[in-house]
Amino acid sequence: MAVVPNAPVRISAFTWVPPFARGLVRDLRVRWALDEAGVDYAVRPLDPRVERPADYLLEQPFGQVPSYIDPNVRLFESGAIVLHVANRCEALLPAEAGPRARHTAWVFAALNTIEVWLQQLVSLELFHAGESWVDARRPQLADMVARRLRQLEAHLGGRPWLEERFGAGDLMMTTVLRSLRAIDRLDAHPRLAAYVARAEERPAFQRALAAQLAGFTSET
Amino acid sequence: MAVVPNAPVRISAFTWVPPFARGLVRDLRVRWALDEAGVDYAVRPLDPRVERPADYLLEQPFGQVPSYIDPNVRLFESGAIVLHVANRCEALLPAEAGPRARHTAWVFAALNTIEVWLQQLVSLELFHAGESWVDARRPQLADMVARRLRQLEAHLGGRPWLEERFGAGDLMMTTVLRSLRAIDRLDAHPRLAAYVARAEERPAFQRALAAQLAGFTSET
Repeated sequence: MAVVPNAPVRISAFTWVPPFARGLVRDLRVRWALDEAGVDYAVRPLDPRVERPADYLLEQPFGQVPSYIDPNVRLFESGAIVLHVANRCEALLPAEAGPRARHTAWVFAALNTIEVWLQQLVSLELFHAGESWVDARRPQLADMVARRLRQLEAHLGGRPWLEERFGAGDLMMTTVLRSLRAIDRLDAHPRLAAYVARAEERPAFQRALAAQLAGFTSET
Repeated sequence: MAVVPNAPVRISAFTWVPPFARGLVRDLRVRWALDEAGVDYAVRPLDPRVERPADYLLEQPFGQVPSYIDPNVRLFESGAIVLHVANRCEALLPAEAGPRARHTAWVFAALNTIEVWLQQLVSLELFHAGESWVDARRPQLADMVARRLRQLEAHLGGRPWLEERFGAGDLMMTTVLRSLRAIDRLDAHPRLAAYVARAEERPAFQRALAAQLAGFTSET
């Protein structure tokens, strides 16, 4: 729920990212899951502009955020951490095997079928703008993103959530879709925009977002 | 273990893919996990060159392979399916919480930190060869892939597996790394090439590979 120094659960997060990335960094997913689960957490702050401390690579072999430590496990990868937290939280993973498995599938689909394409398009626009290859590559990526989003919209249909009720799959999928806002492409998909807005209404999301934003203590 | 018509577990797989993709399609991961777990399975064959049957989209909303059905759950996404199978197989996920969580983290890392870059480079070389953007983009992707592989090698060090023993994380990581062979880039990383070869020595892997290759019934 809240960031509490010396809490038994500790994640890592950046103290600075460019303005367009604020509210989109992957620790948001973990903060949100922890908040849904009612778990307080401490934060290990890292400045992404300098080399990671050597001991951090033992925690996260690729130097990314977030990592996660609790009294029983040491984890990295936001997907793995969200599943770990969700396993102990009925609001995120239903108890019955069937719906539980479905939400797990959607966690992976969000990352490996949707984000894998969105991230390429977002990165092209935000990190590679003006480079010589961008104009030729953009339409291919935009087509693939549009195709995946159409398939997602077709599955969603008129339902509020990916399965019968909100769960870990929705948490992951909506945090992935939010990155479309950074390149002004979410509003082109009203059904998905409404789906994201529905998720963002959850108090746990709002607290998680506020906590991430408050953690950007380095302005320059 | 073996492909058995009408087995209670059923996956989907393609009857045809281009020669370079044979042995790399994602159902291999699931076949391998099922074989490690000693579970027979049936296969729903799909021809990727024609539109998917409408009922398949209920099984896999994006039309990809593999999907997975057993008497209790309906799943898609190779990562989710491998974790589901691994949860019932000590050879893939240790019983203790700590090592178990670590293998889950590596399943996600294989997909979201390694494959996300490898796939872009492999796709550039195999699907976009000769296009106008390729020569300018290649060095950026090659640098990023090399960076991730160096980090992975640094973690692996002199150990045979990512954690104390073989598990689901190694199954996923080595199937991801195998795609580097298709663009002749695995041998440039002797430690990773040896790691992949070690995994490929497992009888369960060999049976899974043979089963996938035997499923390409359409030659043309």
